[in-house]
Amino acid sequence: MIIVMQPDAGDAEIDAVEAKIRAHGLAVHVSRGTERTLIGAIGDERALEPEMLDPMPGVEKSMHIVKQYKMVAREWHKANSVVDAGGVPVGGNTVQVIGGPCSVETADQMVAAAAGVKTAGARLMRGGAFKPRTSPYAFQGKGVEGLELLRSAADGEGLPIVSELMDVRMLETFLAYDVDVIQIGTRNMQNFDLLKEVGKIDKPVILKRGMSATINEWLMAAEYIAAGGNHNIIFCERGIRTFETAYRNVLDVTAIPVLKRETHLPVIVDPSHAGGKAWMVPALSCAAVAAGADGLLIEVHPNPCDAWCDADQALTPAEFSSLMQQLGAVARAVGREL
Amino acid sequence: MIIVMQPDAGDAEIDAVEAKIRAHGLAVHVSRGTERTLIGAIGDERALEPEMLDPMPGVEKSMHIVKQYKMVAREWHKANSVVDAGGVPVGGNTVQVIGGPCSVETADQMVAAAAGVKTAGARLMRGGAFKPRTSPYAFQGKGVEGLELLRSAADGEGLPIVSELMDVRMLETFLAYDVDVIQIGTRNMQNFDLLKEVGKIDKPVILKRGMSATINEWLMAAEYIAAGGNHNIIFCERGIRTFETAYRNVLDVTAIPVLKRETHLPVIVDPSHAGGKAWMVPALSCAAVAAGADGLLIEVHPNPCDAWCDADQALTPAEFSSLMQQLGAVARAVGREL
Amino acid sequence: MIIVMQPDAGDAEIDAVEAKIRAHGLAVHVSRGTERTLIGAIGDERALEPEMLDPMPGVEKSMHIVKQYKMVAREWHKANSVVDAGGVPVGGNTVQVIGGPCSVETADQMVAAAAGVKTAGARLMRGGAFKPRTSPYAFQGKGVEGLELLRSAADGEGLPIVSELMDVRMLETFLAYDVDVIQIGTRNMQNFDLLKEVGKIDKPVILKRGMSATINEWLMAAEYIAAGGNHNIIFCERGIRTFETAYRNVLDVTAIPVLKRETHLPVIVDPSHAGGKAWMVPALSCAAVAAGADGLLIEVHPNPCDAWCDADQALTPAEFSSLMQQLGAVARAVGREL
Amino acid sequence: MIIVMQPDAGDAEIDAVEAKIRAHGLAVHVSRGTERTLIGAIGDERALEPEMLDPMPGVEKSMHIVKQYKMVAREWHKANSVVDAGGVPVGGNTVQVIGGPCSVETADQMVAAAAGVKTAGARLMRGGAFKPRTSPYAFQGKGVEGLELLRSAADGEGLPIVSELMDVRMLETFLAYDVDVIQIGTRNMQNFDLLKEVGKIDKPVILKRGMSATINEWLMAAEYIAAGGNHNIIFCERGIRTFETAYRNVLDVTAIPVLKRETHLPVIVDPSHAGGKAWMVPALSCAAVAAGADGLLIEVHPNPCDAWCDADQALTPAEFSSLMQQLGAVARAVGREL
Repeated sequence: MIIVMQPDAGDAEIDAVEAKIRAHGLAVHVSRGTERTLIGAIGDERALEPEMLDPMPGVEKSMHIVKQYKMVAREWHKANSVVDAGGVPVGGNTVQVIGGPCSVETADQMVAAAAGVKTAGARLMRGGAFKPRTSPYAFQGKGVEGLELLRSAADGEGLPIVSELMDVRMLETFLAYDVDVIQIGTRNMQNFDLLKEVGKIDKPVILKRGMSATINEWLMAAEYIAAGGNHNIIFCERGIRTFETAYRNVLDVTAIPVLKRETHLPVIVDPSHAGGKAWMVPALSCAAVAAGADGLLIEVHPNPCDAWCDADQALTPAEFSSLMQQLGAVARAVGREL
Repeated sequence: MIIVMQPDAGDAEIDAVEAKIRAHGLAVHVSRGTERTLIGAIGDERALEPEMLDPMPGVEKSMHIVKQYKMVAREWHKANSVVDAGGVPVGGNTVQVIGGPCSVETADQMVAAAAGVKTAGARLMRGGAFKPRTSPYAFQGKGVEGLELLRSAADGEGLPIVSELMDVRMLETFLAYDVDVIQIGTRNMQNFDLLKEVGKIDKPVILKRGMSATINEWLMAAEYIAAGGNHNIIFCERGIRTFETAYRNVLDVTAIPVLKRETHLPVIVDPSHAGGKAWMVPALSCAAVAAGADGLLIEVHPNPCDAWCDADQALTPAEFSSLMQQLGAVARAVGREL
Repeated sequence: MIIVMQPDAGDAEIDAVEAKIRAHGLAVHVSRGTERTLIGAIGDERALEPEMLDPMPGVEKSMHIVKQYKMVAREWHKANSVVDAGGVPVGGNTVQVIGGPCSVETADQMVAAAAGVKTAGARLMRGGAFKPRTSPYAFQGKGVEGLELLRSAADGEGLPIVSELMDVRMLETFLAYDVDVIQIGTRNMQNFDLLKEVGKIDKPVILKRGMSATINEWLMAAEYIAAGGNHNIIFCERGIRTFETAYRNVLDVTAIPVLKRETHLPVIVDPSHAGGKAWMVPALSCAAVAAGADGLLIEVHPNPCDAWCDADQALTPAEFSSLMQQLGAVARAVGREL
Repeated sequence: MIIVMQPDAGDAEIDAVEAKIRAHGLAVHVSRGTERTLIGAIGDERALEPEMLDPMPGVEKSMHIVKQYKMVAREWHKANSVVDAGGVPVGGNTVQVIGGPCSVETADQMVAAAAGVKTAGARLMRGGAFKPRTSPYAFQGKGVEGLELLRSAADGEGLPIVSELMDVRMLETFLAYDVDVIQIGTRNMQNFDLLKEVGKIDKPVILKRGMSATINEWLMAAEYIAAGGNHNIIFCERGIRTFETAYRNVLDVTAIPVLKRETHLPVIVDPSHAGGKAWMVPALSCAAVAAGADGLLIEVHPNPCDAWCDADQALTPAEFSSLMQQLGAVARAVGREL
């Protein structure tokens, strides 16, 4: 950690900062420049926070030099981690696609969706049983019955399943239905109690990026899960909130190479929620794979116009199948398989 | 709801939209302009979502005309609601100040803080027993013991208490310690299961704005609580996330008059978290009261430099006392009391 | 245009709005719903602005239905426009790459850069003679001498040139040096006097997106150029400003399909300025082409470490050459050529 | 400047960085920590840019320690600067209000506006003769005739005038009409050629903040003017662009105390453009003064509903007069005069 002193900081103030650093078990290194004195804290700087030093007299600002995440950091684990998602490897050379409807509605819908996902060549199926909705008056998901319909339809096609967990009290039920991959949604990226709980199990967790979460906050949220013992974490970029109003969110493709550099864990992309419109999905999907994504989470519905939720962003099975063809070509162009 | 058709939309497409609207129990009104046909859906438009109509052939876009929140809306409840916070009225002519440390640390710290809060003239005390921290390695709060220390110190001064609830499983405990006002934090503004639970009790709830929540999303989050039956809701603006890096967040004072117009419920401001630095708190507090805030949530710590959390944003009891004097003058300048 | 009246608006207020609309030559269509009265203005709504109607008594809000841009809109010009950039077609099936250094420095640097650009297979060369710098104390560009060095080096390889015009008083000089494509930079996207001037010439104009310009504002800025008579406009996405601090800007790939839908004009991408780091350029370039970009603007410098400006984002000629190979594969995967 | 080396950086890489720093005339100080080596560059760090060092092998990142602005910095000029705006002191104990219409329309309008501004007690008058409009089809201002009408109406009441300069070619004309204060608008905050030109004159300049300009960029833009020799600079906060859509911009009151700490120059606020609605102006004005603003720029129009531009944000003379009363009370509450 580096502490930058104010230009007029005196010896007593510098001494006080030194004493505080030493009290936390770190060594001190002082560098007197022409305009500022800098104090370096040498040792495990995780013991210090800028907020401990910033309010001290004579301190201008202090900053960490080392990243605060450790278990998820590539710095400490150079090779790519491949997460086993119900038998499907995520994070290896093959780009994995997860398809399925935004929300589970009926048995017929789920059977048709599962068939469409399988036929197109995707290897995992998604479906929301519990839905986070902006309005309390909107459809909130089928609940446990939804998990059952998803499990049953996916089993019919031999597909592992992915579903979102919102409430810590439902974790037992998710395990009872053997949900293969548990999704933590955007609004819960910093629901720390939920992160701690999924950190105690061994099912893979898809951790969606918060609407305006920085890369650092996202990595720290994953660190919560890893710190609990569960290292099967998959990051999912899903668009960030900006000033732009022409589309729902801005898909942050830069996050892909940046995350791949910072962490050894897989990174996938949800192009459906990012743009919010089905017609944007192909372009965004191709961009994500070209930028190095390890997978995609795509909404597919047998009849999008009648979907109970996010109807305008789902692809039909035919559109999805055609997109899978194109994604295969893009994946090969960047040295991957689909 | 209005549906704007594409310029080349034909009769069949217009008919299909009409049919869908009628199927949801609304009447239809078609207006053919020179460049576009508009379709109005007349009736309770909460039965329709833009996503139901946008994917239909020939539709360019559709939009709600009426706001989706109802119970919290001033449109349906013209007079200001005054919330009873442990005997202290919030939302009336008196601006209420809630003071106290970011986190509960020790009995001594809490006793000293309570005395400082009381002496300065504030009428409620805050203290965090459960802390949402970006890092899993940072101090996570004293937990239940913290509630006990807060309760005891505040009781000594006759102050009602405010504390943050993060985990739905702790609600019983909060009620057992008779926490007078339950705070829902920024990261949980859209933790819908938590909102539903606090909607079932009758304790007042402070609902902090999400880091990048729109005014509309915030009102809808409050509607979740109100829809459950709990109308004792206090909005708390605490700074939003923007591109600016010179301070932690941008205090959105515009939100104050806008919320006061949209809802009948009280609106308070947290200047401590907004700026993130103690020296900014006086200016931001005065601005908030001048803009019409019904109260403030200010961090006060007997010895900020030694605080275990957010040390650089707490005021000392003396600074707090002096600020209270100035706030009184500003309140009177805009026709309020403190 | 649609005007939404407040729930308690009376007949006198509705009549006044009707009168104002008719006074501007449009017809009126009134629709009385259960909660609101809507007034439609039928005719050329460009004669009306929401700000004319919003302050009238009884009006809740008003909104345009038709887009305000016309000449650049695909609605009125269905086919893709191909812009002739010094003999190189931009906007056709071939993805065009513009390479070269951020700033012109020396004759040797430019000759080496031109050779690198040509060898790698790119067809246009860029170089900044006038540089917009945040600090007045930073290198501001070589000025006119820079144009001369760029022209001469590019001529040696038979490459048309692209350079940024910042000051309207330099336009004559740009024409004198026959700059083939004039770039309007991010900070000048809404320098309306500059836009008007380049609207009067017939050289192609690359219009970079403002740091936080919406798609609509960007299209309207292009409309300024088109309204002057110059239809040779190329949009250039270069990253937008958001809350994220891990990289300079967020490359907005969603803007590519959205612009391609809204306008008939070509859309290119600047991956170098977007990420701000050379190591991010390959991933962002591949993403841009996969998303449908018509071209790329990439910084190439013979010796990036010694560049006088933006040294950390330029590729070496060897890196550029290798990237061109990969881009060719991605282009073919989405049915384009390079 | 501090350079943080990568964990595996070797001696050769450290030596190369040292050599580069020394080559720019600075001394070097190396600090070897447990996880990283830090290199401090001691001397005038303005000679170095992070971009010079970041691309070197073994460098993780580098950062300035000292702020890049100097002439505008309070660090080098402790006392408040008071700018003489046509005889009216801005930046002293008295809060100054500038009133007037968004755009100059007619002689009658201007005479009525000037009377309203004067009567309410404001001491400067504003009026736009050249208007930056998003659409090329919108009213672009009266031009030179507008300056004449403004000058004449303001002279009638003995008020100095403020008007926006967009085009560097019009500067002579502004001086010919003796515009007392030249305003540089939001879209031109980084129009560096324009900044350089107003840096050469001695008229006071109001520098509005760019829509998404950071505090640092804004101070650097002012430094452009100061570096040219003109130190009569007034900062004007006018709302920033965020994700929020319920109002036009977010008035950033935090910028007020932060700027007052960073610079010795005056800071004023434009509440009219910030919120975009007349009904928000009183709350925002009071907040700005309470937060420490040295002045306000408020739109006043004799008949807002008929204004040719931004009609929904202007106050009537009566509303303005009433607001001035309230602002006087707020100013006194924070120890200022109006």
